[in-house]
Amino acid sequence: MKTPEEIVNIMLKNDAFSQWLGVELLEIKLGFCRLKAKITAEMLNGFSIAHGGISYSLADSALAFASNSKGNLSVSIETSISHLKKVSENDELTATCIEINRGKTIGLYRVEIKNQANLLVAVFNGTVHISQKLW
Amino acid sequence: MKTPEEIVNIMLKNDAFSQWLGVELLEIKLGFCRLKAKITAEMLNGFSIAHGGISYSLADSALAFASNSKGNLSVSIETSISHLKKVSENDELTATCIEINRGKTIGLYRVEIKNQANLLVAVFNGTVHISQKLW
Amino acid sequence: MKTPEEIVNIMLKNDAFSQWLGVELLEIKLGFCRLKAKITAEMLNGFSIAHGGISYSLADSALAFASNSKGNLSVSIETSISHLKKVSENDELTATCIEINRGKTIGLYRVEIKNQANLLVAVFNGTVHISQKLW
Amino acid sequence: MKTPEEIVNIMLKNDAFSQWLGVELLEIKLGFCRLKAKITAEMLNGFSIAHGGISYSLADSALAFASNSKGNLSVSIETSISHLKKVSENDELTATCIEINRGKTIGLYRVEIKNQANLLVAVFNGTVHISQKLW
Repeated sequence: MKTPEEIVNIMLKNDAFSQWLGVELLEIKLGFCRLKAKITAEMLNGFSIAHGGISYSLADSALAFASNSKGNLSVSIETSISHLKKVSENDELTATCIEINRGKTIGLYRVEIKNQANLLVAVFNGTVHISQKLW
Repeated sequence: MKTPEEIVNIMLKNDAFSQWLGVELLEIKLGFCRLKAKITAEMLNGFSIAHGGISYSLADSALAFASNSKGNLSVSIETSISHLKKVSENDELTATCIEINRGKTIGLYRVEIKNQANLLVAVFNGTVHISQKLW
Repeated sequence: MKTPEEIVNIMLKNDAFSQWLGVELLEIKLGFCRLKAKITAEMLNGFSIAHGGISYSLADSALAFASNSKGNLSVSIETSISHLKKVSENDELTATCIEINRGKTIGLYRVEIKNQANLLVAVFNGTVHISQKLW
Repeated sequence: MKTPEEIVNIMLKNDAFSQWLGVELLEIKLGFCRLKAKITAEMLNGFSIAHGGISYSLADSALAFASNSKGNLSVSIETSISHLKKVSENDELTATCIEINRGKTIGLYRVEIKNQANLLVAVFNGTVHISQKLW
């Protein structure tokens, strides 16, 4: 059985888009993940703030890592995000994913994204389907 | 009063991330938008399929353009997405955003994303806050 | 294999709360359901409009019937509702549930609720888990 | 300016459906509410478990009380609920609503529902629109 670190290293190594986002793994353990990313000029939208897809993508990566960390291949079914505060260029976002509930086939996770001032910028909820295939 | 085309041209011209996504505007009218994007290698995740953030970002751009097209500055409050089918490299996604409801300060929009085979790959729902500021 | 009608008759016969709501089955077929209910004084909240739970419950019943109609026991995992218009005493609501997507274990359904003037009062999205147990 | 207790007493006194649910107010303060209700036979669905609408309604009442407690009339825009564990007759549910974020016109709240064994049975997220009208 692979450890959470081994699983996430495999996932992250091949995850071109998380690499484009500059995702840095801060912490991974069973059902838990903390990621960091810095907002670059390429991530901004027409309002000169980070595109909503950036926070979503960071949260979705955190969800993928946390939900796969227990060894079963898991994929996101349904996710939602509330954008609470503007994110600007050079902001450093930290996404923390925790497990709310995990059954045999369905898991519920929550991600909170904070900026460098420790202010909550987005809340994300994700439901995953847990397969019986192992990493 | 600016037309939907004028508003979206301003938004898209300054939207670095939508440009990175290769977003192409197919159609814009009051409360409606249709966008296209092609999946590149940089958009893939560790499963070698498009990262969930790519479909989300495309949908979120469609939401931004459709909800701002009526002239009032609008920002997304809460969005959700269900990923229904895997998206692979070179797939061409079309996102169609329609207006479900629009009050004075709150609007509800839905985006459907289909691939080149016209199969539904994701459904996105977005609630926006409509400000009284005009474009 | 039971028909959609047979399945829903079993479900509805034992569904005390749907009965309390006065749910009337208008139409049931594979992956589709249409229900009706009339708003009574007992369903109102402190604003003298229908409690949000009433529209939700009607939609949730429609989801249960439509998603179970294909013969596999199905339960709701994650649902969301947007309340668009006030619902008043004596309003007659019609909830129409359609199937958006159905895999082997996960299904996505949408319910629209309209009032007697055919105005959209709520939109509901529901994800269900489809078990391998048959009705 | 009315206190949270005064506001919720007005709301609850006229809230016929919360009364039908047997909602008992355990605690109310600025942006926070805790409610209790006991599951009766009338609240069950065709699976002999509590109808999904019951947990939703309890959470929606908690949201209404917590979000109105600060003095501005507030109404729910968009809500979602994940049902995590079956709820049976005679179960005693406690719904705790906390404020996640509150701007001038939009507020985000979360409700957790636990049963008498302190197990999490549902998680609810609610976005409200905050009007400038005072209670």
